Amino acid sequence: MVACRGKSEAPTPEPRALGAAVSPYGSRSRFEKTARYFNQNTKVPLEEASSRTPLHDTYGIITPSSLHFERHHSGVPEIDPSTHTLTIHGLVDRPLVFTVDELKRLPSISRIYFLECSGNSGSEWRGGTTESDVQRLHGLTSCSEWTGVSLAMLLRECGVQPNATWILAEGADASKHARSIPIRKAMDDAMVAYGQNGEPLRPEQGYPLRLFLPGWEGNANVKWLRRLKALDQPAMTREETSKYTDLMPDGTARQFTFDMEPKSLITRPSGGDTLPGAGLYEVTGIAWSGRGTIKSVEITTDGGASWIAAELQAPVLPRAHARFRWSWKWDGREALLASRCTDDTGYTQPPLTALIKVRGMNSQYHNNGIQAWKVASDGTITNGNRA
Amino acid sequence: MVACRGKSEAPTPEPRALGAAVSPYGSRSRFEKTARYFNQNTKVPLEEASSRTPLHDTYGIITPSSLHFERHHSGVPEIDPSTHTLTIHGLVDRPLVFTVDELKRLPSISRIYFLECSGNSGSEWRGGTTESDVQRLHGLTSCSEWTGVSLAMLLRECGVQPNATWILAEGADASKHARSIPIRKAMDDAMVAYGQNGEPLRPEQGYPLRLFLPGWEGNANVKWLRRLKALDQPAMTREETSKYTDLMPDGTARQFTFDMEPKSLITRPSGGDTLPGAGLYEVTGIAWSGRGTIKSVEITTDGGASWIAAELQAPVLPRAHARFRWSWKWDGREALLASRCTDDTGYTQPPLTALIKVRGMNSQYHNNGIQAWKVASDGTITNGNRA
Repeated sequence: MVACRGKSEAPTPEPRALGAAVSPYGSRSRFEKTARYFNQNTKVPLEEASSRTPLHDTYGIITPSSLHFERHHSGVPEIDPSTHTLTIHGLVDRPLVFTVDELKRLPSISRIYFLECSGNSGSEWRGGTTESDVQRLHGLTSCSEWTGVSLAMLLRECGVQPNATWILAEGADASKHARSIPIRKAMDDAMVAYGQNGEPLRPEQGYPLRLFLPGWEGNANVKWLRRLKALDQPAMTREETSKYTDLMPDGTARQFTFDMEPKSLITRPSGGDTLPGAGLYEVTGIAWSGRGTIKSVEITTDGGASWIAAELQAPVLPRAHARFRWSWKWDGREALLASRCTDDTGYTQPPLTALIKVRGMNSQYHNNGIQAWKVASDGTITNGNRA
Repeated sequence: MVACRGKSEAPTPEPRALGAAVSPYGSRSRFEKTARYFNQNTKVPLEEASSRTPLHDTYGIITPSSLHFERHHSGVPEIDPSTHTLTIHGLVDRPLVFTVDELKRLPSISRIYFLECSGNSGSEWRGGTTESDVQRLHGLTSCSEWTGVSLAMLLRECGVQPNATWILAEGADASKHARSIPIRKAMDDAMVAYGQNGEPLRPEQGYPLRLFLPGWEGNANVKWLRRLKALDQPAMTREETSKYTDLMPDGTARQFTFDMEPKSLITRPSGGDTLPGAGLYEVTGIAWSGRGTIKSVEITTDGGASWIAAELQAPVLPRAHARFRWSWKWDGREALLASRCTDDTGYTQPPLTALIKVRGMNSQYHNNGIQAWKVASDGTITNGNRA
């Protein structure tokens, strides 16, 4: 038995009055205050900011839609689904325009997938920051059940031509956020999504339509999707030239680095928690891989000298958060706590030093290195990435 | 390609202004109006009523928490989690009182499970009603990811005694809703749940604590859980004597009929839809079994004379809704559309007539019979259970 602290006390008083009636659409208890985090004291307008999921205070593998991270380039447009359309054109035999209702009548797919911003954990690239909170450091990842239509089916219906090698996806936000997607992904598992966790997409997630590219970096999953154009080369948009590229040590840039590679995080206990004393603690967290399915998660308490297998909770789904757990008997001494995962391609999450050795310090994107928490002998927990 | 209706039209106009900023806790688009259904014109107070999930307008397998069905016996109490406690007493060596925070520090479990009211589809027991809507007829089933603590672990910590054969579970609502649970289930997969779809339980689902009994009828999953008492016999509460029993043809009653047996529903197209004409349509729905895992779903369009296998969408999880799909080429003639499922115990969902043959017409609970939709030659769809 782990840290069971029950004690004999007087039970809760019994209520005497009727409670609230049934209701059309529920909301959370007024006692619950957990929220997405965003920095309100910067010069970045909140319309082109990000907000972060409270990973410390969410359970299981489904992120509540209200707490899914956000990243907008020009704010959340308010779109009327009865007038919004998706145009597919370019190198196709039959350009088509679909209403949202027309897309919803087509054969549909629902899948549980993570979505992570390529800038997640970016602050840690050059050594740990003084931030000590899993939400602020690593909260740009979430996981939902997404529902939509196969993009391959739509492209076939339009008669996509053999020389079409890229698809430009453009959003209906003011910045016309746009990315070029290789035809290989478009014809594989890409979706035009209209549903999230059983209901229509939330406005912050692209309502009424978004592109969904399982396992690929967040910004390529174009929200408020209005246009798909088949091309014979990438469009070289702003978001794939000046931004969302990884500047390497030799001055060249990695471009179109779509895969989010295997990564894991211990979410509890984590920065900001205080362990009340030596004893048994449940260590839990999430692991995911844009390349496939998580096969194992290991935990270290000594900064990587030794590793122990954690328990993976079923179901472990491809390109979704997986939940892991491990019972830790803390001896009350300083510890450096971290997790690392391995996916079904055999890739094991590397130390950040290994990533830096190859990719240098010019870019902060795609930090899937091992992330650590430092447990002091007084039980306080802080960012363990600081040297 | 199925019923692809895209056409060439002018695309959506481009927005020019910044949209909304990031936000702490999101909400759905103001254009979305889908709601739980409840009858506002009855003499039943809305504090002891039920509300039903819009199965026609929800996707995938996760029911949005805001649209999870409700059934209350004395309304939704407003409970402060900082003062609420769970008492475990009776035939135990160490009676214990747990705060919510204490329970949240224990080893946790997250699982995706359906929850169905035993009265679901009850109106259909004596022949189909004039209601023609999957929500009103069958909307007392939902599916969530539930997070909590193993009840077996808590009982072991309290030193449950060998002569304890039943556990009385009591809620903190004004009606003190209470059910007796066999120790076998309590020591198997029962949970004291505090989480739903990644965040704390919604108030309507028992915030801050509920009993969760995977696969068992809704009312036994006691909400606002305040007390668990180990007994050497069932407590014979109101809800297991005068209510929630099944009166048989011979005048005896089936009691403690906890298992929700295999059942499936076609949710789209369904009552109230109109097919615009002969052609290809996606038929989709949900199937579940309180006894285990759905192995297959079959569909008939001729009222049961012939059956065709539907596609089951991964993941198919034990005691959870499973999503099925089938492409139907409708020839424009009258059809009687229905689904039936089989689980991994080999049980196949029976025709309602077979249930009536055994159980008679005195009780409407536990209707897991095959549910049909009648498609008229003009494409209108109505309740197909009417003779």
